[in-house]
Amino acid sequence: MTDTTQRQQRFARGKTVLDAIDGEAGANVIEALGEVSPELAHQVVAWGFGDIYSRSGLEPRDRQLVTLGMLTALGGCEPQLEVHVNASLNVGLTPQQIVEAMLHAAVYCGFPRALNATFTAKKVFAERGLLPVE
Amino acid sequence: MTDTTQRQQRFARGKTVLDAIDGEAGANVIEALGEVSPELAHQVVAWGFGDIYSRSGLEPRDRQLVTLGMLTALGGCEPQLEVHVNASLNVGLTPQQIVEAMLHAAVYCGFPRALNATFTAKKVFAERGLLPVE
Amino acid sequence: MTDTTQRQQRFARGKTVLDAIDGEAGANVIEALGEVSPELAHQVVAWGFGDIYSRSGLEPRDRQLVTLGMLTALGGCEPQLEVHVNASLNVGLTPQQIVEAMLHAAVYCGFPRALNATFTAKKVFAERGLLPVE
Amino acid sequence: MTDTTQRQQRFARGKTVLDAIDGEAGANVIEALGEVSPELAHQVVAWGFGDIYSRSGLEPRDRQLVTLGMLTALGGCEPQLEVHVNASLNVGLTPQQIVEAMLHAAVYCGFPRALNATFTAKKVFAERGLLPVE
Amino acid sequence: MTDTTQRQQRFARGKTVLDAIDGEAGANVIEALGEVSPELAHQVVAWGFGDIYSRSGLEPRDRQLVTLGMLTALGGCEPQLEVHVNASLNVGLTPQQIVEAMLHAAVYCGFPRALNATFTAKKVFAERGLLPVE
Amino acid sequence: MTDTTQRQQRFARGKTVLDAIDGEAGANVIEALGEVSPELAHQVVAWGFGDIYSRSGLEPRDRQLVTLGMLTALGGCEPQLEVHVNASLNVGLTPQQIVEAMLHAAVYCGFPRALNATFTAKKVFAERGLLPVE
Repeated sequence: MTDTTQRQQRFARGKTVLDAIDGEAGANVIEALGEVSPELAHQVVAWGFGDIYSRSGLEPRDRQLVTLGMLTALGGCEPQLEVHVNASLNVGLTPQQIVEAMLHAAVYCGFPRALNATFTAKKVFAERGLLPVE
Repeated sequence: MTDTTQRQQRFARGKTVLDAIDGEAGANVIEALGEVSPELAHQVVAWGFGDIYSRSGLEPRDRQLVTLGMLTALGGCEPQLEVHVNASLNVGLTPQQIVEAMLHAAVYCGFPRALNATFTAKKVFAERGLLPVE
Repeated sequence: MTDTTQRQQRFARGKTVLDAIDGEAGANVIEALGEVSPELAHQVVAWGFGDIYSRSGLEPRDRQLVTLGMLTALGGCEPQLEVHVNASLNVGLTPQQIVEAMLHAAVYCGFPRALNATFTAKKVFAERGLLPVE
Repeated sequence: MTDTTQRQQRFARGKTVLDAIDGEAGANVIEALGEVSPELAHQVVAWGFGDIYSRSGLEPRDRQLVTLGMLTALGGCEPQLEVHVNASLNVGLTPQQIVEAMLHAAVYCGFPRALNATFTAKKVFAERGLLPVE
Repeated sequence: MTDTTQRQQRFARGKTVLDAIDGEAGANVIEALGEVSPELAHQVVAWGFGDIYSRSGLEPRDRQLVTLGMLTALGGCEPQLEVHVNASLNVGLTPQQIVEAMLHAAVYCGFPRALNATFTAKKVFAERGLLPVE
Repeated sequence: MTDTTQRQQRFARGKTVLDAIDGEAGANVIEALGEVSPELAHQVVAWGFGDIYSRSGLEPRDRQLVTLGMLTALGGCEPQLEVHVNASLNVGLTPQQIVEAMLHAAVYCGFPRALNATFTAKKVFAERGLLPVE
C-alpha cells in the first residue's frame, strides 16, 4: 500500500466517524477549510476523528462530556462548541444533561465561561426545536 | 423554614444585589437563561450575588476592580465585561478609572486582552453618552 | 430555621458528598484552607459539592469526565487534577478511561496540556498501585 | 529635551514601525482608541512598536511567527490576529507559511484554536485576493 | 538629553516605584533576570513600573486589586502572585481583603484558580506572621 | 502493508524527527509515558513529529519560533518549554534570539508569562553553559 492510499484510508475512516457524530455541522467546517488549509481539514478528519475519536476506550457520549468540559473551559471556542452541542445530542446526551454539564462547569471555570457555553447550547437547542429545556 | 422557602430567600437576597449593581443588563442575562438553564440563572443570582458579592469584606467598587481584572485576563468574556463595565459605573468608578485599569492590565495580560477590554468599555461609554473619555 | 442553621445544613450536605467523592484528598484541601480562608473552604463544600455536585442531573462518573476535561484544558491546576483523578477512580472510572480522556484532550487542547494531565494521573496511579496501565 | 518631547519622539519612532508592519489595519486600531483611551494608543505605538518591535535581535518575519503562535494560543484575539496576518504578509511570510504555522499550532493548542486562527487567515487572504492557498 | 540618559532616567523612575511597592521581592526578580535577559529586567522596571504603574489615574491599592484579579484568572503565575500579595499588603490592603478578593474570584474563574491563589496568599501571610486570617 | 506495519512506520518516521530536534529531553518524555499512556507517547511521536513537524512548509527554526510563542502564551507548560528551549538551540536559534522572542512575548501576553518563560530558558542555558546571555 502506498503512502497516498494509506492517507486516503485514514481520511475515509475519520470521515465515517465525523459524519456519524457531527453530521452536517462537521462537514461544513471541513468544506470551509478547503480553500485555505486543506491539510488542516485532512488532519482534523484523519487524526482527530479517524485515529483518536474512533478508539474504543471511551464511548462517544463520554467523549462528548469531556469535550463539553474542555470547550467550556477554553473559552472563545463558540463555533466548535456549537458543533459539539449538536454532536452531544447526536450521540445520546439529553439537553438536560448538556446544560447540567455547563452548570457543573461554573464550579471549575466560573460563571462567565458557563454562561457563554449555555447560550451557545441555547442557540443549538432553538435550531433543533428543543426549547424550553425542563 | 422549608428548603424551597430558603431557596427563594437566597434568590431574593441576590436579586436585590444584582439589581443594584448590574441594573437592566444583569436582569436581561437572567431572563435569557430562563428557557435553557433556569438553574444556572438561579445560581448566578443566589450564589454569585446573594452569597458572595453581598459579603461585607470588600466594597462594591473594589469588587468591580477585581472583576475588571479577571474578565480582561480571561478573554472571550466580552458579554460579561459589558455588564461589568456598566456595573463599575453604577458603583462609582469613573470612565477614566476603568480605562486606566485596562491600561494597567496590558502590563500583566498583554495588549490584545487590554485592547479587547477597552473596546468593550468604549461601546458601553458610547451607549451612556460618556465619550470622549478625557 | 436560622441563617446559621441553614448554613450548617448546607455545609453538612456538601461534606457528605465531598467525603464520598474525594475522600481524604478533598478533606485535606478543606483543612489547609482553615487558617487562611475558612469562607472559601465553606463555599467549596456547601456550594460546590452541596448545591451543585449533588444534583441528580448527571451521574458522578459523568461529572468527573466533564471535570477531567476542564482541569486538563485550564492548565496549571495540577493539585486539583490530582484530587479529581482520585475522585474519578472513586466513582468508577478506570485508569484506562482516565488516560483515554486525556488522550482525547490532546485533540482539543494540544499535547502540552494532555501531557501534564497524564503525568498527574501517573502520580496518582502510582500511589494507588495501579501502574502499569494496560 | 523635555519629557513631552521625549514622549513624542518615542511615539514617532513607534509609528514608523507600526506603519511599515501593520499598515492601515494598525492605524485604524490606534484611531479607534482615540476617544476612549488615548494613553493605551500611545503605549501600543511607543512601547510595543517603538521600544520592543523595533529592536534588532529578531527579524520582523521571526517576530511575526512568534506573534502568530501567541495569538493562536491565547484565543479570543481574532481582531489582533487579523492585523497580524496582514502584518505577516507585509513582512514576507507567504500564505502557505502562515497556514502551516497554524497547522503546527494544532499540535500544541489543539484543533479549536487552530481552526479559529485559520478562518481568520482565510478572511484576510480573501480580502487580499490570495485564495485559494495551494 | 541623550537616548542613554533618557533610558536611565526611565529606569530610575520605575525602580523607585518598584522598591516602594514590591520591596525585596521585586528586586530579587530583577536581579535574577540579569544574566539571562537584562532587557526584560529593564522593561519591567522602566515601562511596567516607571511608565504605567506610576500613573496617577488609579491608586496603588486599586492597581493591586486589578492585579490580584488578573493573576488569579491567568493561572500558572504563582511566582508573580507571591510578589503581588506582598505588594498588596505593602500598599495597604489587609489579609482579609486579599482573601475576600480571591473568594470573589471563585465566581468568575472557578474554584481551582481561587484555591491556587489563596494558597499562595497563605504562604506569604505565613512568612509575614499574619496567620490565622480572621 | 498491514495497519500494524503502517503504525510502526509512522512512529519510526516521527522518532527520527523527535531525536533530531529534541534529543534526549524528548526521548525522556516518551519513556516516562510508557507505563501510563503508551498511546499518548505513540501519538506525540507518530502524529506530532512524524505527520506535522516533518512537513516541509516551515523550517524547524521557524516552527520553534511559533512553538516558543505558543508555550509562553499558554502558561503552565514549563516542562514542555524546557524541552523546546533545548530544541530551539538544537535547530539553530541563539540564546539571544530565544530571550528576544520572550521579550517580544511580553507585549502580547504580559510580563508574568514572559518572566516564567525567560526563567525556564535561564535554567536550560545554565545546564548547557550558555550563561550569561549578552
